[in-house]
This record gives sequence, structure tokens and C-alpha cells, in this order.
Amino acid sequence: MIRINEHYRKLQSSYLFSDIAKRVAAFQQAHPETEVIKLGIGDVTRSLPEACIEAFHRAVDEMGEDATFRGYGPEQGYPFLREKIAEFDFQARGAEVAADEVFISDGTKCDTGNFQELFAADIRVAIPDPVYPVYLDTNVMAGRTGAFSQGRYKGITYLSSTAENGFVPTLPDEPVDLIYLCFPNNPTGATIAKDRLKEWVDYARDHRALILFDAAYEIFIRDDGLPHSIYEIDGAREVAVEFRSLSKTAGFTGTRCAYTVVPKDCSAYTADGEKTSVHALWHRRHTTKFNGVSYPVQRAAEAIYSAEGRSQVRERIDYYLANAGRIREAMRGLGYTCAGGKNSPYIWIDGKTESWAFFDLLLNRAGVVCTPGVGFGPCGEGFIRISAFNSRENVDRAMERIKEALGA
Amino acid sequence: MIRINEHYRKLQSSYLFSDIAKRVAAFQQAHPETEVIKLGIGDVTRSLPEACIEAFHRAVDEMGEDATFRGYGPEQGYPFLREKIAEFDFQARGAEVAADEVFISDGTKCDTGNFQELFAADIRVAIPDPVYPVYLDTNVMAGRTGAFSQGRYKGITYLSSTAENGFVPTLPDEPVDLIYLCFPNNPTGATIAKDRLKEWVDYARDHRALILFDAAYEIFIRDDGLPHSIYEIDGAREVAVEFRSLSKTAGFTGTRCAYTVVPKDCSAYTADGEKTSVHALWHRRHTTKFNGVSYPVQRAAEAIYSAEGRSQVRERIDYYLANAGRIREAMRGLGYTCAGGKNSPYIWIDGKTESWAFFDLLLNRAGVVCTPGVGFGPCGEGFIRISAFNSRENVDRAMERIKEALGA
Repeated sequence: MIRINEHYRKLQSSYLFSDIAKRVAAFQQAHPETEVIKLGIGDVTRSLPEACIEAFHRAVDEMGEDATFRGYGPEQGYPFLREKIAEFDFQARGAEVAADEVFISDGTKCDTGNFQELFAADIRVAIPDPVYPVYLDTNVMAGRTGAFSQGRYKGITYLSSTAENGFVPTLPDEPVDLIYLCFPNNPTGATIAKDRLKEWVDYARDHRALILFDAAYEIFIRDDGLPHSIYEIDGAREVAVEFRSLSKTAGFTGTRCAYTVVPKDCSAYTADGEKTSVHALWHRRHTTKFNGVSYPVQRAAEAIYSAEGRSQVRERIDYYLANAGRIREAMRGLGYTCAGGKNSPYIWIDGKTESWAFFDLLLNRAGVVCTPGVGFGPCGEGFIRISAFNSRENVDRAMERIKEALGA
Repeated sequence: MIRINEHYRKLQSSYLFSDIAKRVAAFQQAHPETEVIKLGIGDVTRSLPEACIEAFHRAVDEMGEDATFRGYGPEQGYPFLREKIAEFDFQARGAEVAADEVFISDGTKCDTGNFQELFAADIRVAIPDPVYPVYLDTNVMAGRTGAFSQGRYKGITYLSSTAENGFVPTLPDEPVDLIYLCFPNNPTGATIAKDRLKEWVDYARDHRALILFDAAYEIFIRDDGLPHSIYEIDGAREVAVEFRSLSKTAGFTGTRCAYTVVPKDCSAYTADGEKTSVHALWHRRHTTKFNGVSYPVQRAAEAIYSAEGRSQVRERIDYYLANAGRIREAMRGLGYTCAGGKNSPYIWIDGKTESWAFFDLLLNRAGVVCTPGVGFGPCGEGFIRISAFNSRENVDRAMERIKEALGA
């Protein structure tokens, strides 16, 4: 008899986005004349950069001729892309990363979800709250948790991110082995300073733990003092893996390209305490279960690193950051406390009531859709997330409507 | 301390293709004047069909304008593609498959590798020998095997495919829960008749087992009597998942698109024997750990189902099948017994000596590269695989050289 992985039964169904959709549909039916403005989902709205489009077309043409056609590529990605990433995203900032430490993939969702497979089922895992749900769900599937109870899975060490700690969790009281961190953070928009990140790296070194550092929103960092990569911290190469995505960087949410950096110095241990290369483990996993990213997509991604590409990316990020600033200022002007909105496309707003109540208020009185913070974990209760991914016009209209609805 | 998944330590390093590369390099150094002809790897050489290229370009253009840009798509794939697949690949052949039972992915390697995650760690797994190594390796990683010994992992039920059974394994003597089958087969090129496939479906129904049916080479089937899909067999919807790839079908090895069919009737069981929907489990896995296939790639894939696309695909498959026929006839003409080469791009040749000895003979005396059958498992010993994926000119030159070298 084919028996299921019983751990799947512990998974909570996520009703967050379907609940949102239901409430929006009900509102729209009652108010057919109102054009609802959606600032909920974290999906880009601007086109791919022109440089990417040109490179994409050229590569598609190559695939149309026998002489230039490319079949299976290297599972880890083509050297032309891995080399550009190592140079521009790391070496140019003084972070030591070699091209063969960069694994190209089709998404940070896949990579952050799959990485835990390399480790034992009974390691202790630390996960932030609030959080992008993939870190948790994939550990539930792998059997690293107990049952779900009162908003949390047993067996997980939750790292609370609250207004009190500036949405940067403090070191855990109990020893942990695998630590998920995400900065700039989704959903809070918080960033982490070098000295605070160094505390985590030192902790991992002291405890022979491993940090999975999700830097999918790195491109939004503009403050000079903030680290863009965990490898800007001394000693991080031995204890940290970093995930980067082109989704928000260059509008690749529908085109699909990301990468994961696994330094060759990075170690995990056998049950006997013998050092093992995490790079070798991930290489084995990646080449066994993945067949590489589409060649034309890798060429489009490479174009991000051309002079035109970099400038076109910057223009788009400036645009979203200006949106974020306007949202932040509008909400602060109405007396709300906000995190994020600087160095991040997300604004995390203390709604001074329950998340869903504030969601309903914005929907019903302003026709604006946000995301209730409690959907990301119990520590998100009382907050909402507003996303800067929309047109300037829609952002301005949304803020005007909110001011009108909630203003004094 | 971050401890590794100890099961990874059981994995055998695959030296097959690196061993081949080393021997080819040594030969080339000794014979710089000989142009080596490679008929080893199973990678297509013809361009993407023109219809796919046109659709690919149009979709890239859409991504270049804000008004037509697409961000995140559905993880399971766009309805426009799922509907075409259900209609043309299944319903048109009388097999009942609905669009929402088709999950678009970036590769059959990923899907066949990931599917086992849905099931308990202690189920009994049946895997053919010889075999595409991903089925085995991913079960080793998941801890479903014991140690490797004498060419095989303990705990796996191997399904021997030999000349005696026509390379179609017979039902196992011991009860098994998860069964991997691949027809037309890689590496043997063997096909399975409806009545033989029905035996497997009936077995799965009787034992509440599940069949993972890899039909990546389905497009090469030309004999009217052969089933193209396992869903042509009565009752298969309840006990079988089918994997299909566009890699060999339409030259997508470097472009990346595949799909998996999970019928809503298909069941697995909780430890208590309660029926559970495999469709719901895979849906949860797919949406949690995957973010969908690149939109332009899905549009290129859709074009395969246009009238032009179908005709261009057929022309390419005819071309490879004609290559396969020439290889088969040439080798038979030299007195070798061959399987495959009809309804398959692979010719499986009994070399009447050890696999590597025959490999060396073809390389050193004819400058032709094949794949030693023993690299696919102990039952492959004594065989080589020749692939039809090359130009007609190269195939003909290779066969001339082999005739000259091995002919009477």
C-alpha cells in the first residue's frame, strides 16, 4: 500500500490570499463603480529592462538555428552568468564569492524550499515570525516539526520580529542548527545593520550552525552603511548560504531566474562530527534533481549586468522606492507607525487594531487592498503590509483615498 | 551543530559521463586527425520548431511593455498550455485527462525526482535495471535504501530488463508500493504493449500501489498498437501518475518545459488506510516549492500544438527516427542484436563483450562515442546505447566507420 508522507497532514492550509480575494470580490460586487487598487501582493508591475529583452530575443534566435541551438546546459548555470554575478554582485562590493560558488536556479522559492533537504531530519530550526511561509512549510513537510497549535508549529524555534526589537530578531536562548534570516525583510521591510548581522554570524560560528540568508530584496538597499550580502561580514563564508532573486531586482517574477551562493568554505557535519562540504552536498542535489535554467532566460539575466542593464534596473528600483516613500509618508502623515518603505518595497504599518479589521477598513472605505500582517505569523497581528509594486498613478490615488477615508 | 542528511553518504558518485569524457580526450590526443562522432548523450541537435520560435519572440515582446508584462503566473502553469496538453496529448487519443490534472514544470528530471517526497520513507520502491539514475538517487537521498553493494542498493526491488523478457520487466515477487516504469525506455529503447502495461495497472490496483510512468519519449511511438499514455489502460487513472517532457518532443532540452499528469482519481493512503488524493498532495508540494515555468517558455510550448507546430515537430521526430533506423540496420547488418531504434531514439546493442570493452572498440577503431550500458545498472552489462540525436551526415559517417572497422 502506497502510504503518504504523514507530515503533510500537519500543514495548515493557507487561506490568506484566497481570503483576501473573497473579501475583494464581495466588496466589488457591492461597489461595482469603485476601481479597487491592489497594493497587496509583492509582484512587480514594470516590464523587463530593455537590455534583457534584446538579449532574450537574440538567444531565442540562437535556439531557432541548428548551428547555434543549445541543448542541455550545465545544471549549475552557464559560466557567462555565474561570472557576472560573482563579479558585480559580490566582488565589486568586496565580498569574496567565486563564480563556481554561484548556482543558477529558477527561483528563490525553490532554493529556500529545497535547501533543507541536505540536513538531518532532527536538527533544530530557527525561523522568523512574521515570515515568508515557504521556510516553515518545507520544514513541516520534511518532518522537522510537531503539530500546529495556537498559530505555531511545535519543535520550531521562532525568532520574533517586533516593534520592540526593531523587527530584527535577537539571538535564540536555546541552541539552534539551521537559521533562516531575510533582509531586507519580507514582510516587515526591516533591514539589518552590519553589527547585528555579525552577531548572527558569530553565533553560527560558535554553535556550528548554518544561516540561510535570503537577500531577495537586496537591490532596494540604498543606505551606504547596510550590508548587501552576508559575505560582507567576516567569517560568514564558513557558516552562511545566500539566496538572491532576479524577480524583484529586474522584473523576473514571470521569467524565472535566481541564484544561490554556497561558499566552498561552508561546512555541515556528519553525526560523528566530521566536517562535510555544503557546496558538495548542494552540487549533488542540484545536479541530481534539476536540469538548469532556460538558456534564453540566462542570457536575459546576463544583460542585467551590462551598463544599460544596470541603469535600467536602477531606474525601475528608483521608481518603486519612490512609491514606497510616498506610501510611508502618507501613512505616517495619518499618524501610523511604519517600518520599511526605505531600502525595501514593503511598508509594514501598525494599524492600531487587528490586521483583518484594518484590512477591511482600507478595502471598504478606500477601495485599497493590502495584506493583513497576521497572515505571516502571530507576530504580524495588528500590522498590515502595503506593497510599492504598482504604478505611480495608482499609488497616489490609493493614498489620496486613504487620506480621505481615514483623515481627521 | 548542523548535521547532514546521512543518506547522501550512500550515494555513489556517477563517473559514467566523466569516464567517457576522459577516454574520448585520451583518444583525441592520440589521434588529433580523427573527428570523433558523438552518439552517446541523449540530447537533441535540431533547432526549436519555427512555430515555437515565433511564439517565444511574441511573448518576450509582451514582457517588454508594462501594459502586457506578466509577473507571477500560476505555479501549475497557464490554462492556455494545460488545456492544449489535455486536448491534444490525451483526449484526442481517448485518454481521459482534464486540464487541471496537468502540472506544468521545468523538467521531468525535477518531477520524477521530487514526486517521491509525497510518500512515507518506509514504502517499498521498485525500480527498473538498467535505468535513468534519477529514480534511484532521489530515493537514496530520501532514505528509502540501505547501503550500496555489488552494483545495487539494499532495500530496492530491482525490476530486471533483459533480453529474456524483451526488456519489459515482469511483476515483482515481493509486494511493492511505488513502481517506476519508463516506456519507450531510456536506455533500452524498448516499448510496452497494452496487455503488458495492463498487467502493471492491475497489479497496482490489487496492491494499492502507485505507478510513476515516465513517458518522456512518447513522441517517438509510431506503431499503432502501442499505448502512448498509461491512461489508455482501464483503471490507470486510480493508480498512475504520468510524466511527459518537451525536451525530446520539441527540442526543449535547453529551453526547459515538461509536465506531469496527476488524475484526481489517484489515491495514496494514510498509515490508517484512509484514502488521500495524490492530486491534492502534489498540488500542495508544487505550489509550495515551485514558482511556475517562465511565461515566454510556456508560450513557446503552446505553439507545439498549433497546426504548424505539430507538423514541424513531426518532421524533426521523423528525422531522428530515420537516424535510429539507419543505426539499427547497420548494427544488425554487422551481426549485432539490437533492441530499440523503432519507436525510440535509442538503440540498445548487445556488444557480445563487456560494455566498456565494446565502447573502447568503437572509440578506438571507429572514432565513435556511445554509452556503455553498464553505466545504467548491472543488467546493462554487455550492452551499449547508441543515440540517434545527431545530424544525418554524422550518423551515416559513424555507421560507415563502424562497418569498416568491425565488418568481416
